[in-house]
Amino acid sequence: MTRSRFQQGLDELRDKLLRMGGLAEQAIDRATEAYRTRDAKYCQMVLTGENEINQAEREIDELALDLLAMQQPMAVDLRFIMAVVKINADLERVGDQAVNIAQRVLDLISEPEMDLPVDIPRMAESVSTMVQRALESFLDGKAEIAEAVLQMDNIVDRMKDEAFVVLVQRMTSNGQTARAALNVLLISRALERIADHATNIAEDVIFWVRGADVRHGGAHYRS
Amino acid sequence: MTRSRFQQGLDELRDKLLRMGGLAEQAIDRATEAYRTRDAKYCQMVLTGENEINQAEREIDELALDLLAMQQPMAVDLRFIMAVVKINADLERVGDQAVNIAQRVLDLISEPEMDLPVDIPRMAESVSTMVQRALESFLDGKAEIAEAVLQMDNIVDRMKDEAFVVLVQRMTSNGQTARAALNVLLISRALERIADHATNIAEDVIFWVRGADVRHGGAHYRS
Repeated sequence: MTRSRFQQGLDELRDKLLRMGGLAEQAIDRATEAYRTRDAKYCQMVLTGENEINQAEREIDELALDLLAMQQPMAVDLRFIMAVVKINADLERVGDQAVNIAQRVLDLISEPEMDLPVDIPRMAESVSTMVQRALESFLDGKAEIAEAVLQMDNIVDRMKDEAFVVLVQRMTSNGQTARAALNVLLISRALERIADHATNIAEDVIFWVRGADVRHGGAHYRS
Repeated sequence: MTRSRFQQGLDELRDKLLRMGGLAEQAIDRATEAYRTRDAKYCQMVLTGENEINQAEREIDELALDLLAMQQPMAVDLRFIMAVVKINADLERVGDQAVNIAQRVLDLISEPEMDLPVDIPRMAESVSTMVQRALESFLDGKAEIAEAVLQMDNIVDRMKDEAFVVLVQRMTSNGQTARAALNVLLISRALERIADHATNIAEDVIFWVRGADVRHGGAHYRS
């Protein structure tokens, strides 16, 4: 196989991953819309969309394996393919978390609406931006954008901790709010996990672009 | 590089992954012991052990990349290396979940003990067995053992759902139990996530051994 055919395969791999990213973002948006509107229709869209995400994950892994098998890849290509395989797994789990949110929303809307002092849509917006930026950094091969994603993770972590405190207070003072408060708490944790996946993706992009392993705070440049 | 040196590298990769698995299992055991004894010492061991797990993850990824770069691997070796990279990521996340449990136990033991109708140690034992079996299936290259792990996941899922129902009832009837009940609920969810990682590992073993992709219920044999 010629280098240019191999290159075409790499381009296809990149395109497939971006499409996968689009599906994951769509799942987050629909889950958030479900929460905002209390409309089960959006939950259903998330639940049925999961198959498509799983199928896309499989196709990407197969293509990655085929590319690795076709030609002795150069180090830079290897690193790219490895990054794709890891980002792919994270995007699939973003989809899983969107399903978790949709299930919690279904439980939430089965009972009367309750006013709880947690701004889930704002948190979802931050998280969604993180995923978008992480994919943008991948598309452009820009480590600076990926680094901005790592910074945003702290903000989302803080939102999740604040949600925990106020929701536990609410549950403690009024047991009747327990079920609704718990659903909202689990939604905030699912959002925080999506932020973690965006962080993983950003770290993989940096690993690919810089050849450095920034995971777990290490800064071990390999050139 | 000769085939036999490459083979040595593969053996080393396998050994490193098994050691990583041992660290992840240890983290689960310590987190469970922390819950059982309400002794913060075990929580501390889980928290400090996380660095070692992260370091081990990094080393395995580096070795995998080196092996891919060294020699045009045969399809069976590629599949093995890919399985290792994926299992590695799951084991690291098992460690993260053990940290989550340790943090919840710290919160739990900061307040008076409460009797809650959820058997966390029994759930932890099932989950720990799943991780052990998943690693055993990897060590022996036995898809049958991996398949048994997939079956066990349903049992753990059911335990988590039962815990949800009884804990919400408890919180609703008595707001004063909310904080403790919530901590136990989050511990049960962390255990269920570890079971999911064990399931992922089992699927990767089957993928490697059989060349089939059983993920997401697919049974698409490739060889």
